[in-house]
Amino acid sequence: MTVQTLDMVEMGKRAKAAARALVTMTTAQKNDVLMAIASALEAHSAAVLAANAQDVADARASGTDELWIKDRLDLTRRMSGMIADVRQVASLPDPVGESFDERTLDNGLRISRRRTPLGVLGVIYESRPNVTVDVVVLAIKSGNAVILRGGKDSMRSNLALVGVLRDALIACGFPADAVQYIESADRQYVSEMLKLHDYIDLIIPRGGASLHKLCRENSTIPVITGGIGICHVYIDETADIDAALRVIHNAKTQKPAVCNSLDTVLVKSEVAAQVLPRVVAHLAPAGVSFRAEPRALAALGETHDNAVTSANEEDFDTEWMSLVLGLKVVDSLDEAITHINTHSMGHSDAIMTRRREDAERFFNEVDSSAVFWNASTRFNDGGALGLGAEIAVSTQKLHARGPMALQELTTYKWVVVGDGHIRA
Amino acid sequence: MTVQTLDMVEMGKRAKAAARALVTMTTAQKNDVLMAIASALEAHSAAVLAANAQDVADARASGTDELWIKDRLDLTRRMSGMIADVRQVASLPDPVGESFDERTLDNGLRISRRRTPLGVLGVIYESRPNVTVDVVVLAIKSGNAVILRGGKDSMRSNLALVGVLRDALIACGFPADAVQYIESADRQYVSEMLKLHDYIDLIIPRGGASLHKLCRENSTIPVITGGIGICHVYIDETADIDAALRVIHNAKTQKPAVCNSLDTVLVKSEVAAQVLPRVVAHLAPAGVSFRAEPRALAALGETHDNAVTSANEEDFDTEWMSLVLGLKVVDSLDEAITHINTHSMGHSDAIMTRRREDAERFFNEVDSSAVFWNASTRFNDGGALGLGAEIAVSTQKLHARGPMALQELTTYKWVVVGDGHIRA
Repeated sequence: MTVQTLDMVEMGKRAKAAARALVTMTTAQKNDVLMAIASALEAHSAAVLAANAQDVADARASGTDELWIKDRLDLTRRMSGMIADVRQVASLPDPVGESFDERTLDNGLRISRRRTPLGVLGVIYESRPNVTVDVVVLAIKSGNAVILRGGKDSMRSNLALVGVLRDALIACGFPADAVQYIESADRQYVSEMLKLHDYIDLIIPRGGASLHKLCRENSTIPVITGGIGICHVYIDETADIDAALRVIHNAKTQKPAVCNSLDTVLVKSEVAAQVLPRVVAHLAPAGVSFRAEPRALAALGETHDNAVTSANEEDFDTEWMSLVLGLKVVDSLDEAITHINTHSMGHSDAIMTRRREDAERFFNEVDSSAVFWNASTRFNDGGALGLGAEIAVSTQKLHARGPMALQELTTYKWVVVGDGHIRA
Repeated sequence: MTVQTLDMVEMGKRAKAAARALVTMTTAQKNDVLMAIASALEAHSAAVLAANAQDVADARASGTDELWIKDRLDLTRRMSGMIADVRQVASLPDPVGESFDERTLDNGLRISRRRTPLGVLGVIYESRPNVTVDVVVLAIKSGNAVILRGGKDSMRSNLALVGVLRDALIACGFPADAVQYIESADRQYVSEMLKLHDYIDLIIPRGGASLHKLCRENSTIPVITGGIGICHVYIDETADIDAALRVIHNAKTQKPAVCNSLDTVLVKSEVAAQVLPRVVAHLAPAGVSFRAEPRALAALGETHDNAVTSANEEDFDTEWMSLVLGLKVVDSLDEAITHINTHSMGHSDAIMTRRREDAERFFNEVDSSAVFWNASTRFNDGGALGLGAEIAVSTQKLHARGPMALQELTTYKWVVVGDGHIRA
């Protein structure tokens, strides 16, 4: 761990100067630098993996869960995919410079909105070193400078990666300070960063509820929160039950520890006794256990097995992140919508129905970043929704909602062309 | 002044419940309620004007500037225009429900983004009672509930207006709590409102720098700041000087106390001695006085009159809000852009040139909400840019930049339609 005093204002100034330079870069220049980054990561992969191996050894020595190490910290199996993603982002369209809402007013004034980079991003994230590269390539492609602060368990890996990235920037005539890393685990620097509104345009916290709260309460910079979801599937009496079981199984078991995985199944009362036993029978073999409220327990009747326990009050406000599933019976679409709007975190919610008008009501009235009709909540993801990548999944409503990729890292300005026009 | 204890959490809950109801209203229902509001304002105009007359009398008795009373507080000459604006907003397209980025993925999943209301807006504004009506009609049309807090000098006028507005909502079957007013001048309630992130989705402060600072430092809710501008016109050696003089005259004198009025003229050095004396000669008769830095003073030479004094360091960081104009000579487009990005508040900046490539560089590199080529900065306004109305002019980069009207009061959600689709 590096011990030093960091001058965050100086970092902010450098980032802002770098952002000014990035605005002048063409799409071709930005794509070239991304391809150079991919090649540099290949060339230096042994050194990066050696640094990562030290992080992994330390984590293991301190008794960290092996699954956590494998899924998050360890780069070994991830390196080639990570490098492929860099080239993938290079191939995506550049949102910067795109013109929209073009029109000529009656007075002859030609107006449009033009996409521009946001400027400087501050990104705070977990001990997942691949995120370092994901964030940097999305930022550079969209013309933004970044100040990064990753989890302390990945410090060596991140510093190795950032070194490669900065060298590649320099080699391509880009400012190295487009990528800066807070080389300290001291939380003080996070607090200082959150006040740098003169230099940083956006804070993206990736992590748990306490990080979001810290940012919301202390940041004088706009914050995009997200990545926390209590997700629902509602099954009504017209639903294709086989499809519903398939969707529930996928949403619950495919990757239980992510934010778009399923937490609660709501079933319309008239089919509860038919559907709920099949849900249990279909998911229990995958290791799922169930928390059922009284009517759901009753609907399960004699058939329910040891995997089913009765639900507490808090269970429907819990993001499980594991193979646990809440079960509840509702009497109407209205009750389902009200339950979801009360207990959801506004992330991903689905309805299984054959009635288009009920799906439309669900779309309009469920206040979440993504709403699904006859599809798994797991699709709320930048890659799965066709954005090619993502920097975060936003669950707040300002600026961007749901997966954020290149376009969501831009703002716009109004461009007005006249011929000596004055206002009457 | 009403003296009472307000339960801000209760107001937040009511606003959120009202917002849920607004989501279910059709465009026709929303337009009907706006037309009913316009008729009700006509029917009750005598009562509203009587309340306003009391506010005006109090302001006058306490020695308030007459121009301020006339331009901001007094509704007499504004009433019919204000009512016409309500009908105008009714005639604008409804952004809610609009679908965009529609596409079908290779796996058959049909995805789109759909505009939805933000939810609940908290708006803090000056003693301009017409703003009460402007904000409410834009909010209702875009499906949002509002909690309003106007300036204390306009309390009686605002309460009279809010009474009419709420009665019209009830008469049309809308929830009255879609419009709530903080009936106290106590700043404590503003502070409490800024923490209601469970109920309010967006804070819009309309007012000076200290209000923005208060909101930025204390709000746990996203804040849109704006309405403060240090605006520039840069004239290069190819510019049509007659057009430049016309634009400068308009931008400086047409409405000097607004945020898109001109503060500083930058002139390229090779034409400074030719242009600057004409600027002074053209604007001094309108009562404009000038603050010139040394090279501008030198360029003015013997010709400068009493209206010209030498500029201090702070002058170029001052939003004049009056008939004062800074003058400065620069050697290049680069120097002009650097000066603007250093001293501007990111509001409205213009270039007068015949060179398209220089205008393009100005568009891309000047980091402001609106950039103008051969046109007055005064056009940075919702009405003037064809939006039909505006709730504020944003100078921050998240969510909306420049004039904010109906579309800018919406967010979007992802709508995903499948056929039992699961993620592989």
